[in-house]
Amino acid sequence: MDRRTFISGGAVAAATVATACGETGQDTSGAPAAPNINRGVTRLRMVTTWPANFPGLGTAANNVANYINRMSGGSLEVRVYAAGEIVSAFEAFDAVSEGTADMYHGAEYYWQGKSPAFNFFTAVPMGMTAYEIMGWVEAGGGQALWDELSAGFNIKPFQAGNSGHQMGGWFKREINTLEDFRGLRMRIPGLGGNVLRELGGAAVTLSGGEIYPALQSGAIDGTEWVGPWNDLAFGFYREAPYYYGPGFHEPGSCLGVGINKTVWDGLASDHQAIIASACRTANNISIAEFQYQNGIALDVLVNEHGVELRQFSDEIWTRIGTIAEQVVADTGNADPFTRRVYDSYLAARDSMRSWGRISEMPYMVQRERVLDR
Amino acid sequence: MDRRTFISGGAVAAATVATACGETGQDTSGAPAAPNINRGVTRLRMVTTWPANFPGLGTAANNVANYINRMSGGSLEVRVYAAGEIVSAFEAFDAVSEGTADMYHGAEYYWQGKSPAFNFFTAVPMGMTAYEIMGWVEAGGGQALWDELSAGFNIKPFQAGNSGHQMGGWFKREINTLEDFRGLRMRIPGLGGNVLRELGGAAVTLSGGEIYPALQSGAIDGTEWVGPWNDLAFGFYREAPYYYGPGFHEPGSCLGVGINKTVWDGLASDHQAIIASACRTANNISIAEFQYQNGIALDVLVNEHGVELRQFSDEIWTRIGTIAEQVVADTGNADPFTRRVYDSYLAARDSMRSWGRISEMPYMVQRERVLDR
Repeated sequence: MDRRTFISGGAVAAATVATACGETGQDTSGAPAAPNINRGVTRLRMVTTWPANFPGLGTAANNVANYINRMSGGSLEVRVYAAGEIVSAFEAFDAVSEGTADMYHGAEYYWQGKSPAFNFFTAVPMGMTAYEIMGWVEAGGGQALWDELSAGFNIKPFQAGNSGHQMGGWFKREINTLEDFRGLRMRIPGLGGNVLRELGGAAVTLSGGEIYPALQSGAIDGTEWVGPWNDLAFGFYREAPYYYGPGFHEPGSCLGVGINKTVWDGLASDHQAIIASACRTANNISIAEFQYQNGIALDVLVNEHGVELRQFSDEIWTRIGTIAEQVVADTGNADPFTRRVYDSYLAARDSMRSWGRISEMPYMVQRERVLDR
Repeated sequence: MDRRTFISGGAVAAATVATACGETGQDTSGAPAAPNINRGVTRLRMVTTWPANFPGLGTAANNVANYINRMSGGSLEVRVYAAGEIVSAFEAFDAVSEGTADMYHGAEYYWQGKSPAFNFFTAVPMGMTAYEIMGWVEAGGGQALWDELSAGFNIKPFQAGNSGHQMGGWFKREINTLEDFRGLRMRIPGLGGNVLRELGGAAVTLSGGEIYPALQSGAIDGTEWVGPWNDLAFGFYREAPYYYGPGFHEPGSCLGVGINKTVWDGLASDHQAIIASACRTANNISIAEFQYQNGIALDVLVNEHGVELRQFSDEIWTRIGTIAEQVVADTGNADPFTRRVYDSYLAARDSMRSWGRISEMPYMVQRERVLDR
């Protein structure tokens, strides 16, 4: 991913704090004391790292906001700002940390400059699938580590979307052997880019809007982006007809919400529950949408646009896997706190691998084998 | 699954309708007109098809209720009743349809006597994984069909949990060939049971509490239940040491909430949003918990209890797959409405299969191959 696109220069830095502007009504219901009494409106500004309404990503942010607004009956009022409207995509974290905005929706690995540990809360090469990162964060101790990490920046984080599996990318020519990576100029940011460099390729970081022209001019030989649903919209197939899947670098990228912790701590318990639930709701919808829409878009790519599907060879996967484990270990061992996150992540991944390899994985393999005879 | 256990005889049929017992306060906030003004408490009775607090299933019902209660600040008050407390598990649907209870949490295939179409909203043999049924219901037209189906019984349905992949079962002896199914007495309800009958086995329906004694006495030779997390608790490994995975019969069973539609239609829009979000939140937590806890429990089964993991052979899978497609087609073609559901389900499954086979599936295969060298 890495979508630093669309970031305008003249961002307005309007510092506003959430306000509770109403009066407190009297509870005459005879019900147990409830905080949800007549009260004013708390307005929250949500900055995002996405273009407005960007399918699957910007719309996940919209879902968080819409559910909060609807569930609170208007007592919370979240307004969504696209990247560049108040701050640029990569300034979203600082803006929330400092209180310029109240919350963000983005991908945590954008903040890896603050701590390498943030990578583990989005995706790492050869890492967790979407199911698995949900399992780790929600049930396997991941949320507590994430809370601790983000609290250091006065932020309370939540899972709030997941792209599902991301494809290996679009290439102008076939990638048959490890030799084909030598000198390959490919748009692939982050830890995936580190893996490509170890393979002898040139990893390039480009924003979404810059990719197509770079493919067209020949400045790059290939690119990854997300999956069929998002990739179809950009039309990469016209310049790079070989579509490789699966990818190794983002096997289920979690999107996150971060809320200024001072704002969070000041919210009533019903409002906290509404935000926590809206984030999970957006996560749930996101997984469902990517799952369904990728199937629909893949059909269009293959059957209407003649895209050629390819898989990396076992030899390539073996080498990539070995490099990836080292790249991720280097990241995970960067400092003592990141090491704690890495240890927890790795133990959870390997425990869930032991389950996946007797359940989801072989079921899908047998289903394909039997139904496609 | 099929957990008609724990259903006491003397169920109390206390007919109660949700009541809005408070007064309406005055909105003095100056905010846009919002329904979430000072008001009374609406009490909702949720019957379930599970024992109280049953891990993963009863707790998913609790999660729905807890989130509704917390998010509404007490203006909605859901109380959860275990199977047998007000009505038995299999009476939950009628109770909600008729207004004896306001909502249920259960598995839709329990209502297959009302319409065979309900099977498709839980799980069918060789059917959708958890991701896929989320994709179909949430983004691929499934919810509209489900709404139409349930509206015929004055019920509004939601996804509200998912067991993830369910294992193939526990057996006293190894299942090596198709011949080993002949005369096999196995506890496996529903459409999975129909498949076993076609293989020459004797499919038995037993409630959860009846399974262990039946294994012990030799009344049955094997049983399926859920997955490692739930299976460990019942101790089946002591009587049937061979644990087969993956299963073919429930590849990602959706749990559902149904709300009396008259009650639903009478709720304010914020309360409707709260219920819709609480169900998705429970779904999200459920997938995460099963994913993580199954890995932990599997380790205990294998490394502490010496359980032998086995997979059905390709020959068995080929035969099961062929039979399963026919069994599901027979169900799907039962009547015109069910046919519409079946056609939608099948098209969505096969579209998502085309995506899964270049993404999640081969990624997991390569990850196992590379990391387990």
